[in-house]
Amino acid sequence: MEGRGMGLGASSSVGPILVAHPRAKSKVWRYFGFDTDAEGCILHWKRIYCRVCMSQIAYSGNTSNLSYHLEKNHPAEFGELVKSNTGHLREMFASAVARSRPEPQAQYPQQALPDLSRRPSFSGGGGENRRRNDLTQAVCKFICEGMHPVSVVEEPTFKALLRTADPRYSPPSKYDLALKMLPQMYGHAREAVLGELASVVNCGVTTDLWQSPAQNRTYISLSVHSVDHSAAAGFSVGSKCLKTFEVQDVDAAENITSAMYEAFVEWGVIHKVSGVTTDGSPDIVKACSLLELSVQMPCLGHVIARGVEEAFGLPRVKLFLGSCRKVVAYFQETAMSLYTLREKQRQHGVPDRPLVRDRGGSWLSTLAMLQRLKEQRPAIVAALAENPASHQRLGFEAADWARVYGWIEVLQPFKVVTELMTSCRYPTISMVRPVLHMLQSTTLRAKDGDMKEIGTAKEVVAKALSAAYAQTQEVAAFLNVAAFLDPRYKRLPFLSAQERSQVESQVVEETKAVLEKQNAEHLPCPGDFSPLPSEEEQPACKKAHLLLEHKAPCGGLDNPLAAIFCQSDVDQSQEELHAQVLEELGNYKSQRLLGLNEDPLLWWSSHAALFPTLPKVLQKYWCVPATGVPCHRLFGASGAAHSAKRSRVAPPALVDQQVFLYENSRGYHEPEPADDDLEDAAWADGGHALMGPPE
Amino acid sequence: MEGRGMGLGASSSVGPILVAHPRAKSKVWRYFGFDTDAEGCILHWKRIYCRVCMSQIAYSGNTSNLSYHLEKNHPAEFGELVKSNTGHLREMFASAVARSRPEPQAQYPQQALPDLSRRPSFSGGGGENRRRNDLTQAVCKFICEGMHPVSVVEEPTFKALLRTADPRYSPPSKYDLALKMLPQMYGHAREAVLGELASVVNCGVTTDLWQSPAQNRTYISLSVHSVDHSAAAGFSVGSKCLKTFEVQDVDAAENITSAMYEAFVEWGVIHKVSGVTTDGSPDIVKACSLLELSVQMPCLGHVIARGVEEAFGLPRVKLFLGSCRKVVAYFQETAMSLYTLREKQRQHGVPDRPLVRDRGGSWLSTLAMLQRLKEQRPAIVAALAENPASHQRLGFEAADWARVYGWIEVLQPFKVVTELMTSCRYPTISMVRPVLHMLQSTTLRAKDGDMKEIGTAKEVVAKALSAAYAQTQEVAAFLNVAAFLDPRYKRLPFLSAQERSQVESQVVEETKAVLEKQNAEHLPCPGDFSPLPSEEEQPACKKAHLLLEHKAPCGGLDNPLAAIFCQSDVDQSQEELHAQVLEELGNYKSQRLLGLNEDPLLWWSSHAALFPTLPKVLQKYWCVPATGVPCHRLFGASGAAHSAKRSRVAPPALVDQQVFLYENSRGYHEPEPADDDLEDAAWADGGHALMGPPE
Repeated sequence: MEGRGMGLGASSSVGPILVAHPRAKSKVWRYFGFDTDAEGCILHWKRIYCRVCMSQIAYSGNTSNLSYHLEKNHPAEFGELVKSNTGHLREMFASAVARSRPEPQAQYPQQALPDLSRRPSFSGGGGENRRRNDLTQAVCKFICEGMHPVSVVEEPTFKALLRTADPRYSPPSKYDLALKMLPQMYGHAREAVLGELASVVNCGVTTDLWQSPAQNRTYISLSVHSVDHSAAAGFSVGSKCLKTFEVQDVDAAENITSAMYEAFVEWGVIHKVSGVTTDGSPDIVKACSLLELSVQMPCLGHVIARGVEEAFGLPRVKLFLGSCRKVVAYFQETAMSLYTLREKQRQHGVPDRPLVRDRGGSWLSTLAMLQRLKEQRPAIVAALAENPASHQRLGFEAADWARVYGWIEVLQPFKVVTELMTSCRYPTISMVRPVLHMLQSTTLRAKDGDMKEIGTAKEVVAKALSAAYAQTQEVAAFLNVAAFLDPRYKRLPFLSAQERSQVESQVVEETKAVLEKQNAEHLPCPGDFSPLPSEEEQPACKKAHLLLEHKAPCGGLDNPLAAIFCQSDVDQSQEELHAQVLEELGNYKSQRLLGLNEDPLLWWSSHAALFPTLPKVLQKYWCVPATGVPCHRLFGASGAAHSAKRSRVAPPALVDQQVFLYENSRGYHEPEPADDDLEDAAWADGGHALMGPPE
Repeated sequence: MEGRGMGLGASSSVGPILVAHPRAKSKVWRYFGFDTDAEGCILHWKRIYCRVCMSQIAYSGNTSNLSYHLEKNHPAEFGELVKSNTGHLREMFASAVARSRPEPQAQYPQQALPDLSRRPSFSGGGGENRRRNDLTQAVCKFICEGMHPVSVVEEPTFKALLRTADPRYSPPSKYDLALKMLPQMYGHAREAVLGELASVVNCGVTTDLWQSPAQNRTYISLSVHSVDHSAAAGFSVGSKCLKTFEVQDVDAAENITSAMYEAFVEWGVIHKVSGVTTDGSPDIVKACSLLELSVQMPCLGHVIARGVEEAFGLPRVKLFLGSCRKVVAYFQETAMSLYTLREKQRQHGVPDRPLVRDRGGSWLSTLAMLQRLKEQRPAIVAALAENPASHQRLGFEAADWARVYGWIEVLQPFKVVTELMTSCRYPTISMVRPVLHMLQSTTLRAKDGDMKEIGTAKEVVAKALSAAYAQTQEVAAFLNVAAFLDPRYKRLPFLSAQERSQVESQVVEETKAVLEKQNAEHLPCPGDFSPLPSEEEQPACKKAHLLLEHKAPCGGLDNPLAAIFCQSDVDQSQEELHAQVLEELGNYKSQRLLGLNEDPLLWWSSHAALFPTLPKVLQKYWCVPATGVPCHRLFGASGAAHSAKRSRVAPPALVDQQVFLYENSRGYHEPEPADDDLEDAAWADGGHALMGPPE
C-alpha cells in the first residue's frame, strides 16, 4: 500500500486514477475503484481494480466478491475494513462529477429569467403587441406542451391557419423556437420541477425504453415518482419526467449507467431512490445493477404481456388466432362482404359495429378481436352461410367458436386488472401481490372441461408471472410490505401465518430505521403529516417526542461519562423505540379493514395524525410504481397516440426538452387524445364516411 | 365442352363460377378461369381451372403453360384459339366488378356538392359567421393537408391557440372532422384527380410499402405517374396518389392483388398502366405478376441501398463502422469530451459542428458520419491525444483514417447520383442506364491501391446493381429505350453497335404500334402535341394525315372488292408507315445532342411539332419512375419527417383519405419541412441551447 494513497485525492499519478462506486454503500469500496479517464469519468463499469494489489476484478453490482478478495489476499486491510467507519467516499465522487459539469442548477435562474423578461417578443406593449405576444406564447405552448415538431411552423397549412386567425401575425421561425423559446420554457419548467423534487424524501424510478422509428433512434425516458404529503391535500402521488436520452448501441448498458447516474446527480435525487421499475430489458437491468439500485421491480404490464404472448405463440393457439384474423380480414376485404355483414347485423339484431383485427403486440387488441367476434357471431354465421365457398375456405367451425369463448374467459380477468389499475389515481404497487394471487389461484387454475390447448396456455402464463416476480426474494418481500401497508389488503390472506409475521417484522425494522434516522439527523417529530392533530389522536407521536427529548443529551460526547451512561441509554431507547413501533403497528392493524373499492391514500391522509412513522415507510414503498409506463399508455389507446407523438420530434436534445415539457405539463394519469373510437363511430354513422365517398 | 358455357354469363351453376383474368391480354383465357365466390370475387389468384376438363392448374402470372395445356389435351379448342379473335372477356369482368361496387364516380358529385353548399358552417353569412367558417376551413386544411391526426382538435394547447386567436371560436369536433369534413374534402379532391386522370394515356405505377409503428399496421400507398402534354405548358410530369390500403399479413400477395386491381378499376387506369416501379418486396412483386403488370422496374433507391448495405455487412467493414460509431459516441457521451472537441475545433480552425452518428438503415447517413469525421480529423486527433486512456480504448488508428477516406471515395459518387435525381423536375427513368454504367465502370471498378476490404465491397455492390436490373430482359430493354429517347443520352455510348440497333428497332416497333392504334381507333392526326405548327416544321405529320385519308375507304368492308384491293393497300400503308417512322427517328437522331445539364422535357416540349409520334412512345416509357418513392423522401431528410407524419394518423380508412389529400395537395417534388438542420444550427449558436439549459 506504500506510495499509493487510499483516498481519492491522494491517488498516485503512476497507475490509473481510481474512483469508488458513485452509489457505494459498502465500506469495502475504500479498497477498490473504477478506472477513470482524464476528466474523472468512469471508463468501465464492469471492471474494478484492487487499490492494494492493483489486480483487476470483474464487477456486476455485487460487493461480496470484493470482501472475499480482501479477506483472502489482504488480511490487514480486511481487518481495517471491519473496524473502519468512513462514509465520505461517495460524497467525494458526487462532488467530483458535479465539478466536471457546468452546474446548471446554480447558474440557470440568474441568467435565464432576466433574459426572458427582456425579450421584446414576450414583453408587454400596446394591444397590438400584446396580441402578437399572446399568439406567440400560444404557438410555443402548442409545440412544446403538445409535442409537435418545431418545423410545424413551416407547414403551409399551419401558416395559413394563423394567417386566417390574424393576417398581420407571423409565427416565430423554427430556429427561434428550437434555440430560444423552447430552451426558455424548458428552463422555467426545470426550475419548478427542481423545487418540487427538493422536498421529496423517497422516490421510485421508471425507465421507459422507446423507439423513434422515423429517426431510427432508441431513447430512454427517466421519470421519478413519489408519495408526497401536504397539510392541505394529505397524501398524493407526484410524478416527474427528468430526462430523455438516446441509447447508443455501443456499450449500451454502460452508457445507460452513465446517463442515469448523471441525471440523478443533476436532479439531486441520487440518494433518494428506493426502487426502480423496469420493463426487464437486459441493458437497463444491467445498468440498474451497476448503479446498485436495489429493488428492481418488474413492470406488471410487460410481465403480463410477455406471459400472454408466450401462450399466443403456442402452435395450436397461433393457428387458431390466424383463423380468427382470416375471418376478420374476409369481412374487410371486399365491399360486398362488408355489405352482407351489415345486412345480417340488422336481421339478427346484433350491434352494428365492424369486426376488429388485433394489432400484433398487444394481447388486449387480441381480446378485443375475440370479443367482437363473439358479439357478431350470429351475423357472421349467417353471412358465411350465404357463401359456402368462402365459408369452406375460412373453415371456422364450432370448435373455433368454443375457443373464442374459452380465450375470452382466460383473458377477461387480465383486462379487468388493467382497467382497475388504469382507473386508479393512487399508487398501484400494493395491488400487485393480491392481483397476482387472484390470477394464479382462479383465472389461471386448470378447470375441468378446459380445452387442452387452453390448459397448456394457462400453465405458460402462470409460469411466466411467477418467474418474473420470484426472481429475487427482495422483490417478493417488497410487494408484501407494500400490500400490508394498504388498509384494504393488510390482512394478507394470501400468505401463511409465518409469512405474515415475516412481513410484519420487516415493517417493524423499516419503521425503526426511519425513527433512528430521524433521531440521528435530529429531525423534529414527524408529526408533520398532520399540522392540527387533536390530543387523543396522537399517543404514539407524543411518545416519539419524549424519546427524542430523552435521547438528546447523548447526541454529543462532551460528557466523559457518556461512554458509560449513554450506551445503556441507547439500549433503553432502543427498547422504547421497538415498543413504540409495535404500538403504532398494532394500532394500524386494529383499524377498520377498507373496502376493496375505497381509496387507500385517502384513508392514510385522514389517519395521518394517528401514525407518526408508518407513513414514512409507506412513502418509501409506495413511490415505486407497479408499471414502468403510465397504465393508460400501457393498456389503452393512449399508448399509440403517445408513441406517434414522441417519434415525430427530433433531434435528441430537442426530444429531451420536448418530452420533459410535455410530460410535466400534464397529469400522469391524463390520457392522450386518440382516434381509436372513430372506426366504430363511422360504422354507426352509416359506414360510408370512412369506407368510401358518401352515397 | 357441352353443358358448360364458354362465356362468363353462360357458366353452368353446377361447378365453380369461373372468371377470366381481369387484365387478360391473351385469348387463351377463354378456356381458363379463376374460381369466384357468390359476389363474383376471385377466390385464389394462384390457381386456375380449365373450362374444358375442369382440371386445376397453378398460375403465376404467365400464360404459356395454359396454351401448353390446351394444345396437349384439347386440340380442337387449341385450334379454335388460334383462329378466334374475341377480346371482350376483359370488359365483361371489369363491368362485373363495377356492378358489385357502389359506383362512387357516378354518384358522388350529384349528392355531395349540394350537401356541402348547404352546410351552415361552410356557408356565407355575416362577418362573424364568415370568420368562423374561414377558421373552420383553415383548421380542416391544417388537419387534412398537413396530415395531422383529427384528435389534434382535442389537444388542450391547440384549443388554447385557437382561443387566443379568437375567443369566440370553437373548432369542430374530431367526429365532425372525421365523418363529415374530411370525407367532403376527400370527395372534392377525388373529383379533381379523376378529371385529370381521364386524359392520361399511359401511366407508371409506384407501390410504396410503409409501416405505421404506432398503429402496428402496414400500408401500401399506390400512386400513378404520367408525362402529360398541354399546348400552353408543353410536357410535364404528373403524379397522383390514388389509394392507401392496409396490407393484411394473411394471404398478403393475394390481398394486395385485389386491392390494386380494385383501385385501378375505381380510378379508370386499368388499361393505361405501362409499368410499375417496386421496392422488390416479394408480396408486391407477386401481386404485380398476378396482375400481369409488365415491366416491373426495380426502385433505384432501394437497389443502391441494398447493395451498399450488403457491403456494410461484410465482417471487416462492420468492424470498421463500429469503430467510427464508437468515436462519435465518445464525443457525445460526456459534457467534458464535448467541451474538449469544441476547444480543439477552435484551435485547429476546423468548422464548429458536432460529429454525427449514422442512423442504421441509411447508407447516406453513414457517408455523412464518415465525411464529418474526415472534416473533424484534426480536432478529433488532438482531443484524443490529450486523453491516452480513451484513445487506447477507442483504438482508432491511421489505417482506420485511411478507411474513412477510402469509403468516402466509394460512396460519394452514389450521393452525387441521388442529388442529381432529387434535383430533377423531369422523369429520371432515362438516367438509370447511364448512371448504372457510370457507377459500374468508374466508381465500382477495382483500382490499384484499393484496400483489400474496399475492393471486396466494390464487387459486392457492383454485383447487387447488375443483378437487380438484369433480372428480366424486358427491364434492360425498357431502360435502353428510355435512355435513347433522352436527347442527352440518345447516342447510347455504353452500348455496342448491335445493341444500339436493337434499341432502335424496338423504338420503331413501338412507334408503329402507336400509329397503328391511332389508325385503328380512327383518331385524328396526333398533331395535338402542338396546336400551331408552322408549315415547314411538320412534314412527317402531314404524311400521317395523308396515310390516314388514304386508308379511310378501307375501314368498313362494304365494297365486295375490298378483300382484294384493301389487302394490298394495307401492305402498302404498312410500308409507308415504316418509312414515316424511320424518317421521324432519323430526324430525332440528327438533332443536336443535349448538354448533360439541360432539361430533356423542355427540349421535347419545344420540339413537339417536329415529332408527331415519338412523344407518344416517350409518354409510355417515361411515365415509369426510376424510384418507387419521391427522391427527396428516399434520399433526403424529408423521408423521416414524412414517415413520422404518416404514422400519426389512424384508422386505415382515415389514413387513405388523409394521405390522399396530403399527397395530392402538394407537388411531387416538394420536400417536407424537417428538423435535421437544427443540430448543426444549435452547435453553431453556442451549442448550449440544445445541449442543456443556457449558461
